[in-house]
Amino acid sequence: MTPKGFLFSTVEAAIKVPGRKDLALIYSKVEANIAGTFTTNKVKAAPVRLDMKKIRAGRGQAIIVNSGNANACTGLKGLQDADEIAKLIALGLQMNPSLVYVCSTGVIGTPMPMERIRPRVSELIHNLGKSTLQDVAAAIMTTDTFPKIVNKKVKIGNKTGIISGICKGAGMICPHMATMLCFIMTDIAVEQETLDKTLKDAIKTSFNRITVDGDRSTNDTVLIMANGTLGNPLITERMKSYTAFKKALHEVTLKLSRFIVENGEGATKCIEIEVKGAKNERDAARAAFAVANSNLVKTAIYGNDANWGRIMAALGYSGIQMKEEKADIYFGKVKVVNKGITTGKDKEATEVLKGKDIGIFINLNLGSFSAKVLTCDLTEEYVRVNARYKT
Amino acid sequence: MTPKGFLFSTVEAAIKVPGRKDLALIYSKVEANIAGTFTTNKVKAAPVRLDMKKIRAGRGQAIIVNSGNANACTGLKGLQDADEIAKLIALGLQMNPSLVYVCSTGVIGTPMPMERIRPRVSELIHNLGKSTLQDVAAAIMTTDTFPKIVNKKVKIGNKTGIISGICKGAGMICPHMATMLCFIMTDIAVEQETLDKTLKDAIKTSFNRITVDGDRSTNDTVLIMANGTLGNPLITERMKSYTAFKKALHEVTLKLSRFIVENGEGATKCIEIEVKGAKNERDAARAAFAVANSNLVKTAIYGNDANWGRIMAALGYSGIQMKEEKADIYFGKVKVVNKGITTGKDKEATEVLKGKDIGIFINLNLGSFSAKVLTCDLTEEYVRVNARYKT
Repeated sequence: MTPKGFLFSTVEAAIKVPGRKDLALIYSKVEANIAGTFTTNKVKAAPVRLDMKKIRAGRGQAIIVNSGNANACTGLKGLQDADEIAKLIALGLQMNPSLVYVCSTGVIGTPMPMERIRPRVSELIHNLGKSTLQDVAAAIMTTDTFPKIVNKKVKIGNKTGIISGICKGAGMICPHMATMLCFIMTDIAVEQETLDKTLKDAIKTSFNRITVDGDRSTNDTVLIMANGTLGNPLITERMKSYTAFKKALHEVTLKLSRFIVENGEGATKCIEIEVKGAKNERDAARAAFAVANSNLVKTAIYGNDANWGRIMAALGYSGIQMKEEKADIYFGKVKVVNKGITTGKDKEATEVLKGKDIGIFINLNLGSFSAKVLTCDLTEEYVRVNARYKT
Repeated sequence: MTPKGFLFSTVEAAIKVPGRKDLALIYSKVEANIAGTFTTNKVKAAPVRLDMKKIRAGRGQAIIVNSGNANACTGLKGLQDADEIAKLIALGLQMNPSLVYVCSTGVIGTPMPMERIRPRVSELIHNLGKSTLQDVAAAIMTTDTFPKIVNKKVKIGNKTGIISGICKGAGMICPHMATMLCFIMTDIAVEQETLDKTLKDAIKTSFNRITVDGDRSTNDTVLIMANGTLGNPLITERMKSYTAFKKALHEVTLKLSRFIVENGEGATKCIEIEVKGAKNERDAARAAFAVANSNLVKTAIYGNDANWGRIMAALGYSGIQMKEEKADIYFGKVKVVNKGITTGKDKEATEVLKGKDIGIFINLNLGSFSAKVLTCDLTEEYVRVNARYKT
């Protein structure tokens, strides 16, 4: 089940190592409206810089993605390489290069192996339609251990459109305004401005609310292409069908972002941290992220230890307005802290922590603002993966 | 070699577990000038709150410290317990309780086992002089693996004074305005205001420039007692002897803070990160801390991987003013990045990383400000220690 009018292709270009398909192409048979969000890291990869310029026109037809090399910190040469890749695809598909978006993920600082990429472009184009979206999702993986796909049907008038999204993680995850690589396709016709606004709204509470290790990547990119192949009246914000589209897109980004956390490097548990009762929205998010990024909290959860003291310490240094003597903390439904002090229910809380999906609820009891952040535990395997993932 | 007029004592109170001395007393035979800095975490342990009030008067004669329980997040009961401990010591030593400082380190959120502490106080006082400073340094350890002591002689006029300091780490280390527990004693007579200013200056570039895991504790405390037993003319800032005292105190805090990093939980390497060429001092420190707290940088160093891309990414998200195309990065003396791009010297850099003491030098080439931060690598052992250190 993928949206009408999209074709996929994958080839092996041995970008980092041989033995797997690492170059993928997503192609819409017709020009599509496109919207995107990109990393706020000041060090931006060459393809990100290229795409940020192109996206201003709001139109696109192809996305070429490679894994194994981030094409970041590669200077002018990196920009030229990304540009050349777009032009090669445009030439092969006989379209304007401004419609071709380039995305890269992998090691930072190594020049793109153009001598291995160039010879594979014609095969990549030739293969269009022979690969599935699943193949693309697998080709863009780095330290991910499973491909991440979400498909969703949406009733638009009397037609049924489809939104499909794929993404990859799994380290350097603490995005803001975008995360890692995520590509969403739909056959539903959506006006470009509406598409842009809806994507940005959806990301606020999905990709911008997850963290694996607090490290924000140089390559984070989310792109959505709406090619209108469904033939529905163009969706704008004032239309009735907008609500259904918005809801569906939000669900897709939520599920995809959750996949990234579940597949966080070395992760054994998925932890949802909800902060309520904050003085303002910024405080709620800061508090949740401080807890989510605390190595001490993450290792405690890994060790099934209801060490709520580490949560209190993280709240205390998060920079938010708080009063220790007002804070309540729950592990799942077990209240471990009441007004700043222990309830003595550590044993019951330990039972909660033995699960795979852990909920931590914090009520600051100071205001009415809240935020949810998704993270994972910190394990020996995270250390091993990242000590080994050599340049 | 310890300063004249100080006596030490340690006993076992089985505060967390039996089998080791975990309660220590530092006593000056005469009232001393005292200065201190404390955690900026909004969640402050009970003894920290107590000491912050007492220190305003600038006078002290005893410090009682326990390890195994932080007496943090313990509410009113915690404050009463800390106060009672000070009063028991004051009663036994026949002094005003305002001269007794209380410090705690260990698990957060568990009430102090007063029933095991109370009965040991008389023995603790009785034993004064039977323990060494080394014994005290050992008694205040938690996950530390070695006691941390620095002794330093200082020529003051024709006399020779001594500054001795002890401290403990080893996790929840990312202090600001103070760190963990550190006690410095000197027999040199120093005016209280001068003592206070000199301590705060020394801490700026020592304890406030180290990080193990980015987690700032609820208990960070640095105290210095100057009892004047040396009999030198009282040191003020205008005196010639001030320079020697200031220099010596700075050296003591630098060495002690370095010990904490070297003994960081699970650490195998000590990493000094120096950022130069920043637009302002705040940027220099922020950049250095962003790199020092990056799990990806820390695991790469652990894996002897010259993965400078992770350093660039950390600089990029640190929030500082920077231009990728101006940045230079060195591992030791090996330049790996020149104006934002690789020099190809990854092999030489890998050799540097095989050492125990790693220097990372970053020149932003934008201004004239610099900062140094000391950190350690992130290893499987850090995860194990913190997954196991149960409440």
